[in-house]
Amino acid sequence: MLDQIHLLAAVTVLGVLEQAYFFLQVIYARRAFGISPPKISGPPEFERIFRAQVNSSEYFPIFLAVLWQAGLFFHQGLAAALGLLYLYARYCYFKGYRTSSSERLAPIYFSAGVLWVLIAASALGILHFFLSHYVGLNVLQLLTA
Amino acid sequence: MLDQIHLLAAVTVLGVLEQAYFFLQVIYARRAFGISPPKISGPPEFERIFRAQVNSSEYFPIFLAVLWQAGLFFHQGLAAALGLLYLYARYCYFKGYRTSSSERLAPIYFSAGVLWVLIAASALGILHFFLSHYVGLNVLQLLTA
Amino acid sequence: MLDQIHLLAAVTVLGVLEQAYFFLQVIYARRAFGISPPKISGPPEFERIFRAQVNSSEYFPIFLAVLWQAGLFFHQGLAAALGLLYLYARYCYFKGYRTSSSERLAPIYFSAGVLWVLIAASALGILHFFLSHYVGLNVLQLLTA
Repeated sequence: MLDQIHLLAAVTVLGVLEQAYFFLQVIYARRAFGISPPKISGPPEFERIFRAQVNSSEYFPIFLAVLWQAGLFFHQGLAAALGLLYLYARYCYFKGYRTSSSERLAPIYFSAGVLWVLIAASALGILHFFLSHYVGLNVLQLLTA
Repeated sequence: MLDQIHLLAAVTVLGVLEQAYFFLQVIYARRAFGISPPKISGPPEFERIFRAQVNSSEYFPIFLAVLWQAGLFFHQGLAAALGLLYLYARYCYFKGYRTSSSERLAPIYFSAGVLWVLIAASALGILHFFLSHYVGLNVLQLLTA
Repeated sequence: MLDQIHLLAAVTVLGVLEQAYFFLQVIYARRAFGISPPKISGPPEFERIFRAQVNSSEYFPIFLAVLWQAGLFFHQGLAAALGLLYLYARYCYFKGYRTSSSERLAPIYFSAGVLWVLIAASALGILHFFLSHYVGLNVLQLLTA
């Protein structure tokens, strides 16, 4: 079973490391700007770093959910490659947002695009499974016949 | 293996689409009320939409966690049906909260009730597995004997 | 298959119950301090409880992600034991943060330490799988040879 998920597992752990990096940046920013918890407001420079982490945290379970469905029902290698692309886009988003609000836009649009591809792959893979499981219709076989 | 999780996977992807819908509503509300990131405060109308999305995001990993445990250890079809009910309740919650704080209450109580049923199904299913795995006690067999 | 994940599933459900407990504490605090949604600011006593819940929610998907990878690729029993330790540390963190900001520090450091051990176990387990799957190198066999 593990050979069907080892690439997904590797991307998942990389994603966790990236989240840990974002959390550390907020801790450093809190020290640099002297903003102690539970406070979450401060100068725009701090709030941008803080919001970049919060936004990345909110998207993390969504990312994992579609990464795994796409990997299990469509193609593990493709899903893992898209997963790496997403993590790279998130890193660019964080770096961009830290600099200015507008520099977060290009990478956030790109990361959203990658998520939509993962969603489409998941949906297609699951639909294909439903068709072959319940209707006995194997679309791939039809296409290559 | 996939036939034991395909309904859970389908509900998971539907849940992701719902989260995407909530995120889009916040983006539209930011434009409508002229509140640019990283700002998160504004008129109550905006804050209600924003908080509805945040609350739904916080519950999303909890929902997925119990959906999958209930589906794997209790009954996939029942878990998926409860999952659909939860997603519907979340949609009503979002629509209600957008209108007024009080209109979020009925659907949030209902969605919490669905979560508790999923938690109970997960706990019962796992308990049943523990009993049959470690004690050799098959409760279902006893009941039907 | 279920016997490879039943301990992880049990810890997952316990984690969900803990999250439910944290959410309830915020609801009680909202009532006690008279802070109705969508408001999230108030006296420091309220904001500490609120932030303790938000922080625990942000870490929950990260925790589940490494709990399951460590359990699947390293050792289920060890991962589940570390998972229980993490949930206990989170409980201490919540209780500490409610009292004062400084009392959250010791348990948050401890919980982060447990997460790093889970990350290391995940990474080692996945690396071991990659080596034996792609290179045909069985490290454990080499060590005991």
